[in-house]
Amino acid sequence: MIKRVYLDNAATTKVDERVLKAMRPFFLEKFGNASSQHILGQETGMVLEESRGIIARSIKARPDEIFFTGSGTESNNWAIKGIGLENLASGKNHIVTTKIEHDCILNSCGWMGEQGFNMTYLDVDEEGFVNPEEVRKAITEKTILVSIIHGNNEIGTIQDIEKIGEICRACGVYFHIDACQSYTKVPIDVRKQNLDLVTLNAHKINGPKGVGALYVRRGTKIAPLIHGGKQESGMRSGTENIPGIVGFAKAVKISGSRDIRKMTRLRDKLIYEISKIPHSKLNGPRGDKRLCNNVNFSFEAIEGEAIGAYLDVNKICSSTGSACSSRSLAPSHVLKALGLSPLNLNSSMRLSLSKDNTDEEIDYVIKTLRKIIFKLRKISPFKLK
Amino acid sequence: MIKRVYLDNAATTKVDERVLKAMRPFFLEKFGNASSQHILGQETGMVLEESRGIIARSIKARPDEIFFTGSGTESNNWAIKGIGLENLASGKNHIVTTKIEHDCILNSCGWMGEQGFNMTYLDVDEEGFVNPEEVRKAITEKTILVSIIHGNNEIGTIQDIEKIGEICRACGVYFHIDACQSYTKVPIDVRKQNLDLVTLNAHKINGPKGVGALYVRRGTKIAPLIHGGKQESGMRSGTENIPGIVGFAKAVKISGSRDIRKMTRLRDKLIYEISKIPHSKLNGPRGDKRLCNNVNFSFEAIEGEAIGAYLDVNKICSSTGSACSSRSLAPSHVLKALGLSPLNLNSSMRLSLSKDNTDEEIDYVIKTLRKIIFKLRKISPFKLK
Repeated sequence: MIKRVYLDNAATTKVDERVLKAMRPFFLEKFGNASSQHILGQETGMVLEESRGIIARSIKARPDEIFFTGSGTESNNWAIKGIGLENLASGKNHIVTTKIEHDCILNSCGWMGEQGFNMTYLDVDEEGFVNPEEVRKAITEKTILVSIIHGNNEIGTIQDIEKIGEICRACGVYFHIDACQSYTKVPIDVRKQNLDLVTLNAHKINGPKGVGALYVRRGTKIAPLIHGGKQESGMRSGTENIPGIVGFAKAVKISGSRDIRKMTRLRDKLIYEISKIPHSKLNGPRGDKRLCNNVNFSFEAIEGEAIGAYLDVNKICSSTGSACSSRSLAPSHVLKALGLSPLNLNSSMRLSLSKDNTDEEIDYVIKTLRKIIFKLRKISPFKLK
Repeated sequence: MIKRVYLDNAATTKVDERVLKAMRPFFLEKFGNASSQHILGQETGMVLEESRGIIARSIKARPDEIFFTGSGTESNNWAIKGIGLENLASGKNHIVTTKIEHDCILNSCGWMGEQGFNMTYLDVDEEGFVNPEEVRKAITEKTILVSIIHGNNEIGTIQDIEKIGEICRACGVYFHIDACQSYTKVPIDVRKQNLDLVTLNAHKINGPKGVGALYVRRGTKIAPLIHGGKQESGMRSGTENIPGIVGFAKAVKISGSRDIRKMTRLRDKLIYEISKIPHSKLNGPRGDKRLCNNVNFSFEAIEGEAIGAYLDVNKICSSTGSACSSRSLAPSHVLKALGLSPLNLNSSMRLSLSKDNTDEEIDYVIKTLRKIIFKLRKISPFKLK
């Protein structure tokens, strides 16, 4: 008996019980301010550094290169604005990014435009891939930063960051990746991949909401976004959210390759079965260049909103568009960048898996979705061949 | 038998068990992203608005004037930078604040200075009060914002925000208060007190770390500090930290006048007894113009750090300086602004109460502190009359 199938894990995930258990003592007993000098402060100060070490090791960084923030969105804002504003005096005012970034990158870039920066928004191919050679061509002597989403939040496309990192390094340009969706699912090695800044967050990997991090390579010139009491080596002020940070580190610690294999298998089952529905179209690539938990389909001439509503009635949580932003009905800028036809653009549905989904759930979703699509086709004003 | 006496509640507080209980379901069951359209998202979306209403009512604001953030520090940064940068085009580039602000205001103002802003840092009298007439004199036609700490985090001085609010309103200047320490302890009424922006946070009032809010009066011209997916009406993006926000609202709901009366009584007992120690000096005012939970003394010619260390050995958590910032040994900028003598400047100790402290604890602290001071006086190189 299906209670509810949660397939909106790219929007947010359930906190793992082991994560909450790890957090618990830091609310009620070990609640000291990590900057306080007494025993309660020393205790949380130590836990803070342990947690930093866990995050650092997970991407092959040094602990002093990890700065905790309040969210992935904050980390992305910090990367764009902090690099841009700090280096403006050197005459560099150009940032390269793509048309398929998360809104927090695009809107930060928009604001930077108002501050006198020039932006290049790179095109992607029909599967959502950025061509590394296009990155090279876009870089000028005015370029300070290239910012690319690692695993796309809507269509799951995983970019070739190793190649892009090489190009940025050779050109002497900072390279930032937004790894909110890919973290713990795709290997990140900041040295090998030549990464200067990496955005991470907790609530997409069964950790708590309200905590993220930014990796900043030692020696990078970046202004703080949030000034104050000099926490996080003066780079990000504000009393450290110790329970959140402990939960974040625990979520990273319990993530593993078994979960990835399971999600990949369920993802491919969904893709295989949904592809059989007439006039369905997979958005994004197949195989290992796709996030292990992402499925995104368009169903020609059917409203994505209607599919989502019927799935919801049938106890299935899905998403249209990016789903971690506003309840807007405008077509997704990511799908637009793929060059989708108008009939496909508003007909998309995203299913995003977690390690907790089961075969039984996935079978139920396939059966239910098929019924919904056939029903909606019948009442659609568009008659397809 | 005393286990440990926690008197560093101005740095951070223990989460109330009722607060954690209220938060709990939002980690494991009701974990949806408040922007998601399915049932789990609708559920948290509703809880988000309920919480917003609770915070709004507590300061007589409208719900749509409350914006959740990641901390008091973020709210303060947002108020200063968001007002400054948004209104610069109108030719206004002057901000008035005081010499006794929290570091996050002072360092935000420092950064604004680099962006071409002029600052006026007002002096305070020997009890830490800003003279409202000095505020009036400091305002010029270039002034966009006056920002004042409501209840001081080190010395507990409560400013006459009603009078200052009147002056700002009459001059057509935005008025921001940092109410991190005063919230739920001193009445705030945004209409009556003519407040345009108010910084609030949760972890000083037995709520969780990692969540704060900024009240922004309707019609105020302010740029976002964090751009992105348009959460919080586009004013502060990032997936809402629902457990944190629920905990914040619960902490506000359970705060009450009985707690204030209790803290006031214990505060005055501490002040009365510590004043009897020779060469002790209360920093900040007495009576109802002092935060109900703040005690700050200087003990002439004794290192504050040493007092703190000995208190810690005796299971008492106290603080020197502001204690929610870096582990710096530089003398406090707040005590400097009071005009303390060099012998008093480095000899300060702050005890900050919570509703959970008891008479037994306070008696133990008084007895222990007296012994420590006499012991340290004996080994002090300075011989006082």
